[in-house]
Amino acid sequence: MNERPVPAQEPLSSLDGLTRALRCLPGVGPKAAQRMALHLMQHDRDGARALGRALSRAAEVIRHCARCNTFTEDTICAMCRSPRRDPSLLCVVETPADLLMVEHAQAYQGLYFVLMGRLSPLDGIGPKEIRLDRLLKRATDGVVREVILATNFTNEGEATAHYIGELMAARGLTVTRLARGVPVGGELEYVDPGTLAQALRERRPI
Amino acid sequence: MNERPVPAQEPLSSLDGLTRALRCLPGVGPKAAQRMALHLMQHDRDGARALGRALSRAAEVIRHCARCNTFTEDTICAMCRSPRRDPSLLCVVETPADLLMVEHAQAYQGLYFVLMGRLSPLDGIGPKEIRLDRLLKRATDGVVREVILATNFTNEGEATAHYIGELMAARGLTVTRLARGVPVGGELEYVDPGTLAQALRERRPI
Repeated sequence: MNERPVPAQEPLSSLDGLTRALRCLPGVGPKAAQRMALHLMQHDRDGARALGRALSRAAEVIRHCARCNTFTEDTICAMCRSPRRDPSLLCVVETPADLLMVEHAQAYQGLYFVLMGRLSPLDGIGPKEIRLDRLLKRATDGVVREVILATNFTNEGEATAHYIGELMAARGLTVTRLARGVPVGGELEYVDPGTLAQALRERRPI
Repeated sequence: MNERPVPAQEPLSSLDGLTRALRCLPGVGPKAAQRMALHLMQHDRDGARALGRALSRAAEVIRHCARCNTFTEDTICAMCRSPRRDPSLLCVVETPADLLMVEHAQAYQGLYFVLMGRLSPLDGIGPKEIRLDRLLKRATDGVVREVILATNFTNEGEATAHYIGELMAARGLTVTRLARGVPVGGELEYVDPGTLAQALRERRPI
């Protein structure tokens, strides 16, 4: 729709500008952007104003925690500062979204390190790009005892976990990886063969 | 995800605020909002700032054209002011998005009236709510000769077209409705029976 011929005599309007700006959102194409812009103007101007303020504010104040690299407004994030977390455990995740998912599971009380990416040689993302030197420094602070690799179980996530695991093991740290297997509530009939094979290989005594 | 327990000692952060604010967008749930917020902070802060400005600006300056009721920044929109449009034709559409679609078809040179809604008695939306008095005044300016009803071919759009048609016909105006039929490029095998029945009833000599 953005490619339609602009009507004569009409400069780029605020509405067109808004539609175009909405395209910066992931997964939002021209049609969705137009629908969003019209919806906001027609039904939710207060929401539009609030979102405008939230965007400007977040873009200014959000930075990376100096210890765990996740998003925060402080030098050190609240979780890294918390006395209630176990500083001997360090869970390595790819993104802040992954961190939130692990927190959501409510089964972990240690600290995190957020890579903000993963190793991906084909895309030119090597150890330097995801700044593994910072992770190394963080993990060898003398307090961390176990490094839990919670990168994704994709090819890139696995390669990242393997690479970090070697680094950490060389420093004498205990390195663990999230367990793979049948999902909770999962039915064998619907589990993919790779997961089932893994669950068999990693079967546990009960 | 918004419902997860907020970590101890952590007030609502700018990131949470942004995630929550993004929910005002149509079709954006908690997961998508979080993904958008993290994406913007990680990969596109300039986009976030630009979108923030566009939202604030649009919310302030966009209003309704006094003649056609569409969104504009002026009292009368550029299209209503244009000497290149035929003022004897008035096309009635439900929303600004519909207006853009008709323009996109590049087959119409008249003017528009945007209802910003449709009759929907079950939702309490009657002639007053979509301000048909304004349309009536607009259509009876002495210049408009033909009113083209381009509301949707849904039950509500059809009812709206019928209601407006009666109003306009009573004032001696020519009233037409968009043609229904098989879509351009359409194959009979895949056209729904209702559309095919309509195309048969409204068949034309060639």
